[in-house]
Amino acid sequence: MAKYVYTFGGKTAEGKADMKNLLGGKGANLAEMCLLGLPVPAGMTITTDCCTAYYENNCELPNGLMDSVWKAMAKIEKTMGAKYDDPDNPLLVSCRSGARSSMPGMMDTVLNIGLCSKTIPGLVEKTNNPRFVYDSYRRLIMMYADVVMEKSEGIEPADGQGIRKQLDDMLDEFKSKKGYKSDTDLNTQDLMKLAEAFKLKVKEVLGSEFPDDARAQLEGGIKAVFKSWNGKKAIAYRRIEGIPDDWGTAVNVQAMVFGNMGNKSATGVAFTRNPATGENQFYGEWLINAQGEDVVAGIRTPNPLNDATKNDQNRSMKSLEELMPKIYKELCDIRHILEQNYHDMLDIEFTIQDGKLYMLQCRVGKRTGVAALTMGMDMMHEGLIDDDEVVMRLSPAQLTELLHPILDAADEKKHKVIGKGLPAGPGGAVGKIALTSEKAKEYNDAGINSILVREETNPEDVEGMRASEGILTARGGMTSHAALVARGWGKCCIVGCDDLTINMKSGEVTIGEHKFKEGDTLALNGAKGWVYGEAVAMVDATENPNFKRFMAIVNKYRTIGVRTNADTPEDAMQAVAFGAEGIGLFRIEHMFYGKNGEKPLKKLRNMILANTEEERRAALNELEPFVKEAAKGTLKVMDGMPLTFRLMDPPLHEFVPQTPEKQKAVAKERGMTYEEVKARVEALEEVNPMMGVRGVRLGILYPEISEMQFHALFSTTAELIREGLDPHLEIMVPLTINVAELKHQKAIADRVQRDVENGYRVKIEYKFGTMIEIPRATIVADKIAEVAEFFSFGTNDLTQMTLGFSRDDVNEIVPKYIKNKIIAADPFKTLDKEGVGELVLEGMKRGRHTRPDLKCGVCGEHGGDPDSIEFFYHNGVNYVSCSPYSIPVACLAVAQASILKKRKNRNIK
Amino acid sequence: MAKYVYTFGGKTAEGKADMKNLLGGKGANLAEMCLLGLPVPAGMTITTDCCTAYYENNCELPNGLMDSVWKAMAKIEKTMGAKYDDPDNPLLVSCRSGARSSMPGMMDTVLNIGLCSKTIPGLVEKTNNPRFVYDSYRRLIMMYADVVMEKSEGIEPADGQGIRKQLDDMLDEFKSKKGYKSDTDLNTQDLMKLAEAFKLKVKEVLGSEFPDDARAQLEGGIKAVFKSWNGKKAIAYRRIEGIPDDWGTAVNVQAMVFGNMGNKSATGVAFTRNPATGENQFYGEWLINAQGEDVVAGIRTPNPLNDATKNDQNRSMKSLEELMPKIYKELCDIRHILEQNYHDMLDIEFTIQDGKLYMLQCRVGKRTGVAALTMGMDMMHEGLIDDDEVVMRLSPAQLTELLHPILDAADEKKHKVIGKGLPAGPGGAVGKIALTSEKAKEYNDAGINSILVREETNPEDVEGMRASEGILTARGGMTSHAALVARGWGKCCIVGCDDLTINMKSGEVTIGEHKFKEGDTLALNGAKGWVYGEAVAMVDATENPNFKRFMAIVNKYRTIGVRTNADTPEDAMQAVAFGAEGIGLFRIEHMFYGKNGEKPLKKLRNMILANTEEERRAALNELEPFVKEAAKGTLKVMDGMPLTFRLMDPPLHEFVPQTPEKQKAVAKERGMTYEEVKARVEALEEVNPMMGVRGVRLGILYPEISEMQFHALFSTTAELIREGLDPHLEIMVPLTINVAELKHQKAIADRVQRDVENGYRVKIEYKFGTMIEIPRATIVADKIAEVAEFFSFGTNDLTQMTLGFSRDDVNEIVPKYIKNKIIAADPFKTLDKEGVGELVLEGMKRGRHTRPDLKCGVCGEHGGDPDSIEFFYHNGVNYVSCSPYSIPVACLAVAQASILKKRKNRNIK
Repeated sequence: MAKYVYTFGGKTAEGKADMKNLLGGKGANLAEMCLLGLPVPAGMTITTDCCTAYYENNCELPNGLMDSVWKAMAKIEKTMGAKYDDPDNPLLVSCRSGARSSMPGMMDTVLNIGLCSKTIPGLVEKTNNPRFVYDSYRRLIMMYADVVMEKSEGIEPADGQGIRKQLDDMLDEFKSKKGYKSDTDLNTQDLMKLAEAFKLKVKEVLGSEFPDDARAQLEGGIKAVFKSWNGKKAIAYRRIEGIPDDWGTAVNVQAMVFGNMGNKSATGVAFTRNPATGENQFYGEWLINAQGEDVVAGIRTPNPLNDATKNDQNRSMKSLEELMPKIYKELCDIRHILEQNYHDMLDIEFTIQDGKLYMLQCRVGKRTGVAALTMGMDMMHEGLIDDDEVVMRLSPAQLTELLHPILDAADEKKHKVIGKGLPAGPGGAVGKIALTSEKAKEYNDAGINSILVREETNPEDVEGMRASEGILTARGGMTSHAALVARGWGKCCIVGCDDLTINMKSGEVTIGEHKFKEGDTLALNGAKGWVYGEAVAMVDATENPNFKRFMAIVNKYRTIGVRTNADTPEDAMQAVAFGAEGIGLFRIEHMFYGKNGEKPLKKLRNMILANTEEERRAALNELEPFVKEAAKGTLKVMDGMPLTFRLMDPPLHEFVPQTPEKQKAVAKERGMTYEEVKARVEALEEVNPMMGVRGVRLGILYPEISEMQFHALFSTTAELIREGLDPHLEIMVPLTINVAELKHQKAIADRVQRDVENGYRVKIEYKFGTMIEIPRATIVADKIAEVAEFFSFGTNDLTQMTLGFSRDDVNEIVPKYIKNKIIAADPFKTLDKEGVGELVLEGMKRGRHTRPDLKCGVCGEHGGDPDSIEFFYHNGVNYVSCSPYSIPVACLAVAQASILKKRKNRNIK
Repeated sequence: MAKYVYTFGGKTAEGKADMKNLLGGKGANLAEMCLLGLPVPAGMTITTDCCTAYYENNCELPNGLMDSVWKAMAKIEKTMGAKYDDPDNPLLVSCRSGARSSMPGMMDTVLNIGLCSKTIPGLVEKTNNPRFVYDSYRRLIMMYADVVMEKSEGIEPADGQGIRKQLDDMLDEFKSKKGYKSDTDLNTQDLMKLAEAFKLKVKEVLGSEFPDDARAQLEGGIKAVFKSWNGKKAIAYRRIEGIPDDWGTAVNVQAMVFGNMGNKSATGVAFTRNPATGENQFYGEWLINAQGEDVVAGIRTPNPLNDATKNDQNRSMKSLEELMPKIYKELCDIRHILEQNYHDMLDIEFTIQDGKLYMLQCRVGKRTGVAALTMGMDMMHEGLIDDDEVVMRLSPAQLTELLHPILDAADEKKHKVIGKGLPAGPGGAVGKIALTSEKAKEYNDAGINSILVREETNPEDVEGMRASEGILTARGGMTSHAALVARGWGKCCIVGCDDLTINMKSGEVTIGEHKFKEGDTLALNGAKGWVYGEAVAMVDATENPNFKRFMAIVNKYRTIGVRTNADTPEDAMQAVAFGAEGIGLFRIEHMFYGKNGEKPLKKLRNMILANTEEERRAALNELEPFVKEAAKGTLKVMDGMPLTFRLMDPPLHEFVPQTPEKQKAVAKERGMTYEEVKARVEALEEVNPMMGVRGVRLGILYPEISEMQFHALFSTTAELIREGLDPHLEIMVPLTINVAELKHQKAIADRVQRDVENGYRVKIEYKFGTMIEIPRATIVADKIAEVAEFFSFGTNDLTQMTLGFSRDDVNEIVPKYIKNKIIAADPFKTLDKEGVGELVLEGMKRGRHTRPDLKCGVCGEHGGDPDSIEFFYHNGVNYVSCSPYSIPVACLAVAQASILKKRKNRNIK
């Protein structure tokens, strides 16, 4: 049998930090902490391989596994000085999941395993605390019944009918009968009675006995954790996070220590630096006399770790620093040891049992984008990490988050803060109140921004959290479910807003004295935890000086070009400010949109509705000045940098009125009959417009359309040269299928160029290239490159035609394909490397066979997708082009790919 | 300088028959006839290379060319015993085009070159026939002004304003003033006057003098012929015939002989066998005292060549056999020599000058499909050709023509023949009268069959001839323009219908006493030359016993499989009768079409409109018996042969009612509201349905649809096995993009297979494969072949997505693309080998890398296109699948490709 069990404890361990794949994150880090000499309760990790074996073995533990477990238990017993299932000196254990990648709250945990009629008396004697023992016992029964006996058996009770809910109800009923307000009012007798009642209820509901056998309890716990890898919540989470289903989870069986053994006991979680802002402050929360899940569950508002990090909500509460200074000091030392060892910010869990500190978990902490930026830059200055590592420390998603808007501070001043909570997720958000996950999704589907407002969130809410712009909860701390998830996504989130009450029945929300209904608008400042009862203006968050310094480092490591897709001087300026080195895609169609587009649109329509070439030419003559103006403005901004002008691309029918009313108006305007206009519009309709008359086909069918554009561009260029500017014009032909199309267009361009050069007496230089966006173009790229001086891969269209996926229609297909594991990701978001990617590579290879210095760029959506950029980087693309706000992310993706390549090469050497 | 000039004459020649590419067909065959010792007027051929050089040289003759011409002229003078440009014994020459491939009437000719004031008196003296000389002179001026001075100078006069028309009008005016009825009434004085008047008119209209210089005339003639290669007519013809623009034409300069020198002179054309029926009869027409173009132009109805081939129209006219028996005998000997030399039927032109026979042209003659078949089989029996050559002798188009319908003889008896003409083109035709080429095209565009009815046709009519079902002319013989062109295309054609008169002004057509208007219906029997004044039923023409013998030889040489695309037992039977070896594409959708489809369509609609999986399953259960029935009928016909069943493919919206009325009816029927039905229909609408939810996507989104089909197929198979039959079921998944889709569907199939096997206690065998019709599938074909046991390339869809050409929308694009030389042919008719073809090859290569014995077929339209089939054959496709009526053509294409390959290999060895 493979080695499935790794022990740790007593300053030694069989595993270590870099064995995450095998031991899961939690197990690997517990081992590492032992090796660092930190106080960790002894335990064992059952490997992820064992989970795989368990599933392959039809959900049975591998033969001999339990023998290894009991052998490892003997080691734990020795370290802890207690014995599992021993009547006199019993050891209790916890059983927790731990996957390669953190999946907070998504899998199941059982605590206090080992309590049974055989061991209870001994523990009572040992702790001299019968109340504690019976409280632990009733908790074990509740958890075990829920996790091991119900969920892991695949029983799916109706909502609110689960065993856990029924036992909770019994507890509440008991308390109310006794007139108790809190769980702590329950005395030993109460707890003994409850435990017996719980066991009867379990038998009644689930049909089997709660096992009064410590060894059986442990085996059940291990199986249940493995089983929870494929629980609904876990699967849903993996889908969102892109975690493969076959990784499996490890199981950590660890000696229990108790934070709930009285006022010298406590439990807490902490971050070695502030995970929201990145400040170099020890930051955490703790609860006296509590078990770990009490903090995470957000049921009680926890105390602050130290005085420096107190906030409005917890200023009056005592910090650990104040109440247990010695232990706080010990924790600070541990913080230092861990950061020096991991070179990163860590998220830790600790328990204080009767005055003694235990470390229960450490892992690299999740953080907001701004925190990642601040920490990275700080750690570089502290000498903890090199500058290439700074680049690696910000994920593209975190950088995107940095570019996300925040509330406009100036506008905030004009509005009243009506509620305050903990600043759990970054940025700002404005949206309509959604009281359920479903409502948030509904709003999202309708394109409406929402704020998910909840008492507290739980894993069932993740989809709604994703669909909303921001999250606001009444309860929970900085490490509550809502806070963890929101921060992971860089989503604006405020938790523990005490002034908030929600009446689910009436759909009413009260914040202080302000009343709202679902659908009313709120605004959140996620950095401060402030809530506004109305919309507040939003602004960019890129003025952070660290951001600029960070981008300078990124650009040092970036090895291929980044251009922008921009159609206006404003966008071009923004992109250049973000580091764009040129325009990879200028879409002239933009000039027809919006208020300013009305005039040129009218001319364009005249062109489209013309009956003869003469009429068309006349309309084009009137249109040309607008094209010139549009091109000139942006060419000026891009002075000295390339601007790739794509010839008019969309099908003409997109520009003619579709409703009878509008058609009548146009008819009147043009002196045509309504029937004529209608007939012309109908003639332009196509069954599959994506594969119809557009792109270069327009220029072949109506050469005068291309001619006009060439004339506008060359005369603009000539004028700019005369003004002393340095325009770098690149003309790009879209939708090309063969070289004959390019030759046809080039002949027109050459003729117009000669005319304009003669007219202006100026020498015009430009590059003539093409988009490669039809599969055939990649196949005949060698011939196309005879004329094209550059290629720009239009991966949007190329994806459509390579997969036969109409972008307008795939919403029906792609989600179901992903769900059925037919495809791994949306090919319009992340490049289909195996299919579309191969065509791109083939196109580049063939093109460069003809023209070795052929410049190849990418200007589809994928040009802004980090995963796709990595692929392009490794395969010889010269530049990617993306929207202005994606520029920093694209730069980062290139830099990271380049650093990883360098590291890999170093390792190979 | 390259050798641009090749001489021939006096039983010797510098060229020979196999030098067609260089000398053009006419030049090469003139040389060959000299080598065979036949009486050919001496001449020279200026090569096609010279034409290329002429165009490369900006339409100037290469330097030194005229020197070579004059050198060659010296040889001609010696052979002919006369001198060009000599005042005493002048030689006249003709100047004719001659391309690699015959382009009858498409390029220009100038006759009588060399007549000028210097040479006229000598010729008058020599011939002692001043009228003949001046008639020749006025003809030279008319032709030269038209061809050399107007057309070749690029002058494009308005319709009816050309110089030729103006001179013709002058001639007519002169005749009417004099009261002459015919040209032959003109005397020498008249012709002298006319010639002088013509020259003044030419100067007036064209601004330059008719050259009174023999040497200048010849140089002008040569240039004009080269120039006419790029005349409008020639370009249009090449486009239709697929002749490359860069081949160029040769120019033949040949000593003139005159068929118009009196009653011992004549001119004629003949075929060594009957070109319409293939009968082994010498078949031709001739005119006494006429020049060659008089026969071809169809102005006079010509005499029959011999008694055996007289027909109703010319029975009263004298044959050459009767009037000039000695010359007829000489011609018969020549006929024999030529057939023995060429092993084929030849089309010859001859002139008799004052009792002496001259051969002016010979070439392999155009023929109808049935003639080709008859001649091929006859020549094989005569030992002239081998059986592989028989296969090569029928072009796929001719075989198609054989399969084309003829008038139903039984039905013909019920109708009255209202007119008779020459049976110039094969088959039968029924259609509406079109009086102009434009009208015929208009009808064709509207999907209406037409008969083009004309006085006579000329090259300007070719497009209209192509667009019509049949051609009927009032004038012309079997070798008139209409007859030649129609036969080349295998199109039904009747010429020389004397009873026919056309009034273009009123649009009225009279045939005998019957009056018609444009748009009225006629029927033609092209084999007999009979015209009916109403529609006649049509039937197949495949009952010819030669056809069956021919197909047996074809199948002997066929080396890859031919299957059919058939959806009904009837089609399947027809295909098997034609030689299909299986069904390559069975489309279950067919069951929903037509009257019989109404019931299953209702069930299908219920399935589509269902709201839940349960409803959908219930509807599918009701649909299954229909699917079983449809599959069973055809599987029975195909007993022992493979049947490839394609899973349901079309988008569901194709099956739901689109109009409000129909939607209301369906709503009522199903107990739904109209709004519900409308909403469901709208939900199914797609922007680009070609790339939407169809094919395997249906089966992934609604697995129960596939499950039902699997169940129907397997239980049908089980039942047929029980009945003692031998079904070979192949299940084909359409629109696959990756192997996961196949695995998903295969898992369902496997499960259903087990169930059905258990239920029927029968072992079911079947093959599981896929269509390869999305570009991505060709790229990941290696993975797809892990599951697919066969590939069938769906080249229709593959063409759409590889080129981004929506089949429904390309009518706007493809014709203009072909016209602009962007593409050479319609990619939906002839495979785009460079693009789509390469993907097919790549797909096969990758698929066979995984599964070396992977069976690969083609089931798009291209499976029936000979040119595409040749490509598939050479590249390892196992079979092609096409519509039943394309089966013989597909077999022929494969056999021909296979014979050509064998011949090539033999030549290499």
